[in-house]
Amino acid sequence: MVRIVAKFGGTSVADIERIREAAKRVKTEHDRGNQVVVVVSAMAGVTNQMVSLTDQMSSMFDAREYDVIVSIGEQSNAGLMALALQNLGIPARSWMGWQIPIHTDGIHGKARITGIETDELERRLESGEVAVVSGFQGLGPDNRITTLGRGGSDLTAVALAGALKADSCDIYSDVNGIYTCDPRIVEKAQKLSAITFEEMLEMSSLGSKVLQTRSVELAMNHGVKIQVRSAFSDEPGTFVVNEDEIVEQQIVSGISDSIDEAKITLLRVADRPGIAAGIFGPLADASINVDMIVQNVSEDGMTDLTFTVGKADLNAAAGLLESNKEDIGYGELIRDPDVVKISVVGVGMRSHAGVAQKMFQTLADAKINIKVISTSEIKVSVLIDEKHREQAVRALHTAYGLDGD
Amino acid sequence: MVRIVAKFGGTSVADIERIREAAKRVKTEHDRGNQVVVVVSAMAGVTNQMVSLTDQMSSMFDAREYDVIVSIGEQSNAGLMALALQNLGIPARSWMGWQIPIHTDGIHGKARITGIETDELERRLESGEVAVVSGFQGLGPDNRITTLGRGGSDLTAVALAGALKADSCDIYSDVNGIYTCDPRIVEKAQKLSAITFEEMLEMSSLGSKVLQTRSVELAMNHGVKIQVRSAFSDEPGTFVVNEDEIVEQQIVSGISDSIDEAKITLLRVADRPGIAAGIFGPLADASINVDMIVQNVSEDGMTDLTFTVGKADLNAAAGLLESNKEDIGYGELIRDPDVVKISVVGVGMRSHAGVAQKMFQTLADAKINIKVISTSEIKVSVLIDEKHREQAVRALHTAYGLDGD
Repeated sequence: MVRIVAKFGGTSVADIERIREAAKRVKTEHDRGNQVVVVVSAMAGVTNQMVSLTDQMSSMFDAREYDVIVSIGEQSNAGLMALALQNLGIPARSWMGWQIPIHTDGIHGKARITGIETDELERRLESGEVAVVSGFQGLGPDNRITTLGRGGSDLTAVALAGALKADSCDIYSDVNGIYTCDPRIVEKAQKLSAITFEEMLEMSSLGSKVLQTRSVELAMNHGVKIQVRSAFSDEPGTFVVNEDEIVEQQIVSGISDSIDEAKITLLRVADRPGIAAGIFGPLADASINVDMIVQNVSEDGMTDLTFTVGKADLNAAAGLLESNKEDIGYGELIRDPDVVKISVVGVGMRSHAGVAQKMFQTLADAKINIKVISTSEIKVSVLIDEKHREQAVRALHTAYGLDGD
Repeated sequence: MVRIVAKFGGTSVADIERIREAAKRVKTEHDRGNQVVVVVSAMAGVTNQMVSLTDQMSSMFDAREYDVIVSIGEQSNAGLMALALQNLGIPARSWMGWQIPIHTDGIHGKARITGIETDELERRLESGEVAVVSGFQGLGPDNRITTLGRGGSDLTAVALAGALKADSCDIYSDVNGIYTCDPRIVEKAQKLSAITFEEMLEMSSLGSKVLQTRSVELAMNHGVKIQVRSAFSDEPGTFVVNEDEIVEQQIVSGISDSIDEAKITLLRVADRPGIAAGIFGPLADASINVDMIVQNVSEDGMTDLTFTVGKADLNAAAGLLESNKEDIGYGELIRDPDVVKISVVGVGMRSHAGVAQKMFQTLADAKINIKVISTSEIKVSVLIDEKHREQAVRALHTAYGLDGD
């Protein structure tokens, strides 16, 4: 007997027909004698619609009411999925977050799961009933509905898989797996059969929208084996697992690119202690995330500082810095939204030297100028002109031997 | 200090702008120092959309899942109304049925309220907070969401008003009160300042869709004073109250008409004991309600039987009787969907003779043939050809002295 959590994303439960198709996949697992928990998202678009209504009503809204409003799409889809399964002769019932309950902290809009009561679910799973759980929602300490942040249904699925000690957490969506790079850019991109949690984390945070970052962290911490697979085909997807479960580990698993970055350069900043805090403090206070940071070698007590923020935050960040120009003390601020961050990711680089060097050489050979570099244990990222995006990804994909047939 | 339950129907909370307008009415009451509980319906159309999705998914659906699906519109509107009130500076929070809880029996889709826990609500009302309650929904003994049947938000409002001993239960909708008859038919129809529960019950069950029948029963049993009023104007509406609260009672309060009826006549039925049970038993088993019944004087041991069913049930009822023709034993079945039921309603008829006679004479003078008659203590109903509908209502409205200027 195998226990599976199967999560269906918004496009795979976007209408009655697709919910029926998803239910058939669940039936296949159930017919094999497997215990199945289904986690459903809202129909694609529904949650955005509710967020928009909330924004129209009130720009500074009470997050407790926001959660009441935006969680309804998962509720109705859980009911519809339960009906679809019943139509196929499978005993099934829907579960709201508050019914299980999935306990969370009280941070409405971005709650964290603090515990899941599984006794009743387990009893019913063992009796052959399929549990259909509304994703994205839980119950706060105030006995009110909480939501887990965008992409939170992934988190629901992984947390349930962890609490129920499930053998697999299958994430069904319109994406059939994790690729060595964006297949829309590189025709020779290959689907990976497996990837490590760490690599997936880097890919998620670098812009690959397949899995919510926090859900990958949670899976890593609880050893939940994830499979990213298509809701529209039977082929196996990509497993996201611990490093020791991957037999043939590539040095580099993939090339990720993100155009959600923008670059800000401050010229002629006084190079004195506390200057970085003076610059980044106001940005942090305004909840603007800063990603890559480079400080040039200081000359005559002055330095240039370059960093990246989310493209959506560029104007807010630049505005803040300009209004604090006197306090900070710098010569000029240059904005550049036309950049792309290209990253090479692979746990193999821990034990192999020369990965970064190959990246720099490959870009140099292609006459692509690198503006900023940042590295982590399993990743090298560079910021380049957006116009070189496709050329860079293709060249790197080839250089690291990732091209398929 | 006055305590008010204010219920807003689907058209009065149909979009963001209307919810804002409704919130202003609540603010007016709150500013007067009144304690206010707001009950909200779903945005007009949303519940029908969810019912339709449920029907598409499964014709024989699990009513427990139906309730999960169709209750979402009241949930999101409660959140939006709470935000609208907060925008106006009024402390407010939303309450789902399961949070209060509003306990119900386990008859999903048509649950009855069995009890409401009011301690926390009362505490917060006394502190000046407005409670915004999702209409139409409660919590069943199985810890699952139940719904109260169509129009169930009226029931939520009246039950809360009863449990909280509210001074008034204001039902805001796109109707500004109860009229002596349908103003679309009779220009001289007048809005009533007050009507008794008994009359309102007859009006509701006769097709005036202003208030759900069960909510009127509940209000009568708990002495909840209802005001039916417009969400779009400040004028007072119609109070629905006990008979002794109405100072100048009319003999006849109103003329009601319903085109939702259809007539079935069985010719040459054997006039023997048990025949009525043989005819109406199968209809009851199929949940087909029979309303008016007339049996002609028996001749030669044979009789004709005429009765009415809902127009939507006509084919099902006739089909059932035709397939049981041998068992029942009758000569011919005649269907007639082109009928209308006209009713004269007034608690004054208890003490005044001649009300029915005036109805028959008025219709006779207008050369309108009466097909079926039925009476209750405070009502006389006749079935006539649908083509005479407007003529009959106008003539009766004049005959009973109800015409306004």
